Amino acid sequence: MKEKIKVGVLGATGAVGQKFVQLLENHPWFELTEVAASERSVGKTYGEAARWFQNTPLPERIRHLSVKACQPQLDCQIVFSGLDAAVAGEVETEFAAAGYAVFSNARNHRLDDDVPLVIPELNADHLHLIDLQRKKSGGSGFIVTNSNCSTMFLAMVLGPLHQAFGVEKVFVATMQAISGAGYPGVASLDILGNVIPFINGEEEKIEIETRKILGALAGGRVQLAGFVISAQTNRVPVEDGHIECVSVKFRKQASVAAIKERLQNFRGLPQELKLPSAPPQPIIVMEEPDRPQPRRDVMAANGMATFVGRIRPCPLLDFRFVILGHNTIRGAAGASILNAELLVAQGRI
Amino acid sequence: MKEKIKVGVLGATGAVGQKFVQLLENHPWFELTEVAASERSVGKTYGEAARWFQNTPLPERIRHLSVKACQPQLDCQIVFSGLDAAVAGEVETEFAAAGYAVFSNARNHRLDDDVPLVIPELNADHLHLIDLQRKKSGGSGFIVTNSNCSTMFLAMVLGPLHQAFGVEKVFVATMQAISGAGYPGVASLDILGNVIPFINGEEEKIEIETRKILGALAGGRVQLAGFVISAQTNRVPVEDGHIECVSVKFRKQASVAAIKERLQNFRGLPQELKLPSAPPQPIIVMEEPDRPQPRRDVMAANGMATFVGRIRPCPLLDFRFVILGHNTIRGAAGASILNAELLVAQGRI
Amino acid sequence: MKEKIKVGVLGATGAVGQKFVQLLENHPWFELTEVAASERSVGKTYGEAARWFQNTPLPERIRHLSVKACQPQLDCQIVFSGLDAAVAGEVETEFAAAGYAVFSNARNHRLDDDVPLVIPELNADHLHLIDLQRKKSGGSGFIVTNSNCSTMFLAMVLGPLHQAFGVEKVFVATMQAISGAGYPGVASLDILGNVIPFINGEEEKIEIETRKILGALAGGRVQLAGFVISAQTNRVPVEDGHIECVSVKFRKQASVAAIKERLQNFRGLPQELKLPSAPPQPIIVMEEPDRPQPRRDVMAANGMATFVGRIRPCPLLDFRFVILGHNTIRGAAGASILNAELLVAQGRI
Amino acid sequence: MKEKIKVGVLGATGAVGQKFVQLLENHPWFELTEVAASERSVGKTYGEAARWFQNTPLPERIRHLSVKACQPQLDCQIVFSGLDAAVAGEVETEFAAAGYAVFSNARNHRLDDDVPLVIPELNADHLHLIDLQRKKSGGSGFIVTNSNCSTMFLAMVLGPLHQAFGVEKVFVATMQAISGAGYPGVASLDILGNVIPFINGEEEKIEIETRKILGALAGGRVQLAGFVISAQTNRVPVEDGHIECVSVKFRKQASVAAIKERLQNFRGLPQELKLPSAPPQPIIVMEEPDRPQPRRDVMAANGMATFVGRIRPCPLLDFRFVILGHNTIRGAAGASILNAELLVAQGRI
Repeated sequence: MKEKIKVGVLGATGAVGQKFVQLLENHPWFELTEVAASERSVGKTYGEAARWFQNTPLPERIRHLSVKACQPQLDCQIVFSGLDAAVAGEVETEFAAAGYAVFSNARNHRLDDDVPLVIPELNADHLHLIDLQRKKSGGSGFIVTNSNCSTMFLAMVLGPLHQAFGVEKVFVATMQAISGAGYPGVASLDILGNVIPFINGEEEKIEIETRKILGALAGGRVQLAGFVISAQTNRVPVEDGHIECVSVKFRKQASVAAIKERLQNFRGLPQELKLPSAPPQPIIVMEEPDRPQPRRDVMAANGMATFVGRIRPCPLLDFRFVILGHNTIRGAAGASILNAELLVAQGRI
Repeated sequence: MKEKIKVGVLGATGAVGQKFVQLLENHPWFELTEVAASERSVGKTYGEAARWFQNTPLPERIRHLSVKACQPQLDCQIVFSGLDAAVAGEVETEFAAAGYAVFSNARNHRLDDDVPLVIPELNADHLHLIDLQRKKSGGSGFIVTNSNCSTMFLAMVLGPLHQAFGVEKVFVATMQAISGAGYPGVASLDILGNVIPFINGEEEKIEIETRKILGALAGGRVQLAGFVISAQTNRVPVEDGHIECVSVKFRKQASVAAIKERLQNFRGLPQELKLPSAPPQPIIVMEEPDRPQPRRDVMAANGMATFVGRIRPCPLLDFRFVILGHNTIRGAAGASILNAELLVAQGRI
Repeated sequence: MKEKIKVGVLGATGAVGQKFVQLLENHPWFELTEVAASERSVGKTYGEAARWFQNTPLPERIRHLSVKACQPQLDCQIVFSGLDAAVAGEVETEFAAAGYAVFSNARNHRLDDDVPLVIPELNADHLHLIDLQRKKSGGSGFIVTNSNCSTMFLAMVLGPLHQAFGVEKVFVATMQAISGAGYPGVASLDILGNVIPFINGEEEKIEIETRKILGALAGGRVQLAGFVISAQTNRVPVEDGHIECVSVKFRKQASVAAIKERLQNFRGLPQELKLPSAPPQPIIVMEEPDRPQPRRDVMAANGMATFVGRIRPCPLLDFRFVILGHNTIRGAAGASILNAELLVAQGRI
Repeated sequence: MKEKIKVGVLGATGAVGQKFVQLLENHPWFELTEVAASERSVGKTYGEAARWFQNTPLPERIRHLSVKACQPQLDCQIVFSGLDAAVAGEVETEFAAAGYAVFSNARNHRLDDDVPLVIPELNADHLHLIDLQRKKSGGSGFIVTNSNCSTMFLAMVLGPLHQAFGVEKVFVATMQAISGAGYPGVASLDILGNVIPFINGEEEKIEIETRKILGALAGGRVQLAGFVISAQTNRVPVEDGHIECVSVKFRKQASVAAIKERLQNFRGLPQELKLPSAPPQPIIVMEEPDRPQPRRDVMAANGMATFVGRIRPCPLLDFRFVILGHNTIRGAAGASILNAELLVAQGRI
């Protein structure tokens, strides 16, 4: 790549926006040229507008960038959207209409018929929906979405298993980190030494998004995968990393050994193409009886891998196991960036 | 009651032991006369031997009690056992053989054929097994056990539902408090800002003990209840209170309204007999969308009630909900004390 | 007392407001008749307007109270103010002008020349300033304030020592609970597993308010006490209870034994008059080497006592020790209520 | 460096030992060839013996190392000691006597007359004491110690200020992370949502070790620096990173600006020699009003820098500020390694 592609971040001062900024620094293909946010930040420098709370210092160059409005007049080709769902829908549509490649972490367009909801290891073929978008608009812009964070890790693990054994039923109970709720997000008085057994809209997202991702593209539409999921979601006092207790029933015969083998050896397009943000091994199987654990494991592979442990039979369905992933990296900003990398590698951008 | 019954605590310096001591202070029927512990504590005063970490002060009278060995030479009629499973089995057998009424929180005898595993609201009839014990030994001593803490709350809620609708399948994923692991128990480096998705032996206990409690006593034996449970257990950084996400399939038709009505109105023998430690309402149904929560709800009803919230349909089984209970009170020491109160009220002690 | 005095709470839905509501339930002298809050709550029931997060249930009677505006048309004689400093100043002045007895937890009027800043155990004589207020206004209303929460515990301990030994220099470093910042207050992402070594305005409050409380009323004004304080304040991930590490230099000879004796035996007017909210012993000296601790000690004496431990010589000044108090009870709502009780007992209300 | 120097770790399975192992992996000068621990680990592989709880994976090569006894028959030239104080004294003496270069993190020999207590940025000249040790023993072995973790950061900051302005009096109140207590260390039931205002022996260490480090070597002995320190130490629920609130009085005139300038520009021998573990800038001055914070700042500069913020006047002494450092890296294992690197660079090893 001779020259870096200019990229912008929408909602750049928020939690996901900051993670985009952090991950894009020193990116080999992308150069962050624009940071856009809500009215009250416009005109300030990014350093003034953002209450930076990542655990690496705010890059000096970014500190001095001027914050722009979230309007399609940004000097860049790609925009990454960390916008709040309250405004993301319309803004992203405007940017796509104006010719930008939009990679969104917001939920608004995920279930739109012509918008791909993509995990590049699993359903890169859904990206053909972009052509429909372009045809409809007559322009070159489009929207690609990535899933809700909890959905990401569940789908990542179910994907290879579905292909091999045919998923029929899934039970999942999550324990989700506070960073998943943005900033300021969860009040400390609500969560310190506590569990909140409810996350608004989360269970519905897991139950539907997973089936779109693992569904088949046919006739210009995605058919939802034909299994049933029951999700129960909880907030726990953990900084980063969602844990999911999963039980699954397959249509075909499987075994603990076959599941481990399948997950451990699974590779996808990002690994083949050696995309810059791709984890060398997307799914890491752990053998220790008490792993994975968020604080100890989640940053292995730079927060881009999904961890599975305690794979064992289930007395009710067939097998059960524990999943872990980094909710703001692989589950949010990193997922959008990986999607963009794939389209660049495929020459579609 | 003219005169209080003398009681002792085995394993009195440990986590459960301290909770026994705390709950027995000012008990209307029982007087704590003996505290027994391991060799290294014997001869010291309780104040010297115990690293008291309850959030009420150590009662002055108890501070000066002399710690005895765990041998059946204690001046009391009832002993409550908070012993570690490594030693509980034999010690409790010795005390029963010597004529003591033993109420144990340890797992060792829970599954013995002639030992009742009792939640007095649910299966007080299992206490007839005491007669078998007495007949076998020829003495008046016996052992009564209460369940593992997570099992307690699950069984408490499934009990009335099983009777009404016939439980067929149960999923449960738990988030358990650190106090459930005793003291010093879980290292802070292991759990601060973390989740440990494993508790040794816990899943097996839930899957079997629940079925013994809800099983039928017939021909001098308990037939395990005929449903299947799949349990996944996790440790979370919460001080007191276990949360359980449950999904259940019934044999008969049920509805959210019918479940709520059944749970809310459920009463058992302890309520009828107005036992001193009995919660007026054993199961409290919460309507707020994000409750129950451990830190906010667990001490209502003095830690003796079980809370249920988020009762709603399940796309996989029939219904799902969230349960909360206080693991060291209703789930341990308080359960043993309630068992003892029932036998006293029934004139069996 | 034949009939209860009607009281209202200003800012009733906030953190301090809720604590007022909780503490006033079942008060022997006061009946909570009015709850007032900001515009967006007016007209709703209290149950609808307040996100109740105390660990006792919201009293049913209060749940149905209609929330009023913070205007002096409330049906009550006394108002307790848990208002935010942004609005408290003016509102409290209006209520006093309209004849209400105002007991405020807000900082706005604490340093006003004619407003008493009172800890009834220490400087009840400052309440004479009320007469100045009444004279000036010609009405019967007035404002009485209590101190900042960290100041409360420091002043409570320094008070008896100042009288006995003459305080000359004080160094204090605090570790303050999250509940001190109100609700939603501190974001969990900011404080989970972290320390924030800064609380806006807090050090200044401690350094000046302590000296006003321990100052002498002379000629209708309070002369600030003549010692110097250096305060450093920190936020820590603790729910309730502020810890303060203190070092102090006296003008007269003292000893560890003399300090303990002085603090342990100290009693004030609230104890003499047996006011309903008065702790029997205002200062509790602890001998264990690692106490006081917030989670274990702060609720002893219903959160109204101040704890002192580790009293020992200081190589730099004279003596050092550790202080603990409950920031939202004795340090806020409970302090205001105790002030009101004193004025009622003295027949001034 | 042609060939790497072989090094071993004593107490390799413990908390500090694991940090040594982690930091020595991929060290450019040292090769970890030996891991030694207590009897019950001897003969196992390191992977079996150590409950690895670092947040990077255990290096495969190390996993398979055989654990040796802590006896001077190890195949290496340097040993790093992470031994517990209960055994460190004698073992380290034996290794030195046998000719090993011993770099110890244990407290036992820190105050020995002929043992240097060294922070290489500050008092590298104290290393001349090694010659005394060698002369006395006739061999080439010796012991070099680094300070207690809290002392490290305080001394690091006081060092340049003492040289410039002459320290006269120091107050320090610490908030220390749980990793400072080793593993399992602090029980979660003791520290979750709590503060423990006591760390056994810690205050004494800070008050004396700081003065030895900043003392002058004269006539073969270190004269303690002539200032007075008063330390108060607390344990807080933070994983890594000690915060210290400091107030200091100087003999000479200083100013906030002069202090900042002095600290920010301070460099020592490790920076001059570009030692592999040396932070490029040993002291980082932060300007944000609420920094440094442990979770956000402590890993900047790989945990080897010391952070200072909130530098401002003190109403009691002259100036006050907040210090942060990583207790198990710069405050323990990293400090020992830096000491070893200096001696290698100076050709003394």
